[in-house]
Amino acid sequence: MNITLEQAEKVISVAKEKSKAIDTKMNIAVVDAGANLVAFSRMDGAWLGSLDISIKKAKTARYFDMNTGIIGELSQPGQPLFNIEHSNNGLITFPGGVPIKNANGEIIGAIGVSGSTVENDHTVAEAGASAI
Amino acid sequence: MNITLEQAEKVISVAKEKSKAIDTKMNIAVVDAGANLVAFSRMDGAWLGSLDISIKKAKTARYFDMNTGIIGELSQPGQPLFNIEHSNNGLITFPGGVPIKNANGEIIGAIGVSGSTVENDHTVAEAGASAI
Amino acid sequence: MNITLEQAEKVISVAKEKSKAIDTKMNIAVVDAGANLVAFSRMDGAWLGSLDISIKKAKTARYFDMNTGIIGELSQPGQPLFNIEHSNNGLITFPGGVPIKNANGEIIGAIGVSGSTVENDHTVAEAGASAI
Amino acid sequence: MNITLEQAEKVISVAKEKSKAIDTKMNIAVVDAGANLVAFSRMDGAWLGSLDISIKKAKTARYFDMNTGIIGELSQPGQPLFNIEHSNNGLITFPGGVPIKNANGEIIGAIGVSGSTVENDHTVAEAGASAI
Repeated sequence: MNITLEQAEKVISVAKEKSKAIDTKMNIAVVDAGANLVAFSRMDGAWLGSLDISIKKAKTARYFDMNTGIIGELSQPGQPLFNIEHSNNGLITFPGGVPIKNANGEIIGAIGVSGSTVENDHTVAEAGASAI
Repeated sequence: MNITLEQAEKVISVAKEKSKAIDTKMNIAVVDAGANLVAFSRMDGAWLGSLDISIKKAKTARYFDMNTGIIGELSQPGQPLFNIEHSNNGLITFPGGVPIKNANGEIIGAIGVSGSTVENDHTVAEAGASAI
Repeated sequence: MNITLEQAEKVISVAKEKSKAIDTKMNIAVVDAGANLVAFSRMDGAWLGSLDISIKKAKTARYFDMNTGIIGELSQPGQPLFNIEHSNNGLITFPGGVPIKNANGEIIGAIGVSGSTVENDHTVAEAGASAI
Repeated sequence: MNITLEQAEKVISVAKEKSKAIDTKMNIAVVDAGANLVAFSRMDGAWLGSLDISIKKAKTARYFDMNTGIIGELSQPGQPLFNIEHSNNGLITFPGGVPIKNANGEIIGAIGVSGSTVENDHTVAEAGASAI
């Protein structure tokens, strides 16, 4: 099962609404089950550097089928996955990446959001992922 | 002058319609005046390898403010710009990248399309660019 | 709004004067609003390795519209942006990168300075940025 | 012997004058004897994609101590250096890169120019190199 473009657009649309509702400007990326980009939107005035981060968050969430923040806890100094960010041409392991599941609970892609605090990034990513 | 997300979404929407009208499945990328991605859509079933090509076409069109196919004529063996594709982390110099201008004729971004023949790619890119 | 070459040259000129005044040898880079290099100077005898660092500092400051040192505090182990440096082909998040604003307070580019202690790097970057 | 920043600035200044005199907008890069960037200027309105090309031309000219166009003749299909552009993270082998020599004829650096036809690029590079 793979996310469709129509679903990805719905994810981005809901994420944009949430972003506006909490007064932020976000880069929003959606990847499919193969971790390849399906849709992307950079809101006017959003940080340029968050473009790459949002895509890397979406890929990271699908690479390991979990929220990026969970990996970030394991990649700290002394933890089991220290510096895992060096793999896959660069992971981003702080919050803002969330897997997207279909009605059966199967992972069909992931969303990555960047442009504010990691808490806000995660809130917007969660809103987008829950649109499916 | 820089393209807005709303303008970029309109460009992609018109490009998608054109793509469907000629029975193709495209990757469509829009970059701003700084050659940074603003919006992207991969239609269901479109070639995965065209994802990167569409983004590189959009960047290439903005890097040199001309249709990508023009550069491709000049980069052939024996021509003045042979192997220019090695610059800028990889250019794509066949048709499918087109600058986007505002009402005053100023370049505000570019569109890149990939997923079919280069003729079809260019047709869809032209349709998208003309939406502004 | 985008920085002009004349403005970028003034930024570098003032930064060089400051660098000499505090007896340092610097690499100084200025990027525009799109985070693309506009002007660069490496003072005689400045560290070679600081060439890339100065450019990455300038890009990083524009990517997130803040001084690089602020990001560096957030990217420490246990902090919210741990290992953000893996994004955007490599960020530099210690001091020495500063956004450049015009008279209206709009960010039109950024300066990155590297070649001495991070305190000195920041001092010279601040001097350069304040030239506009 | 290595080019000084003062010399590099003179090279760029003369190249800019020449560029204006022939009504072009150029990216101009100067590298030292170690092929590392010393100074760079992007004239207002110059092609963004020429930024990387000008630096690669300067490096290429110093890597092989000859005008870049000479290498380009040897890198054509069937010629001895076919596709040499794949080395050194990307060479640019069409005209616009010229070694810079001191009064004793020793090579102390190189200039790379990009932003117009390769003939114009070379003309401006020659003018800059002859300033020393």
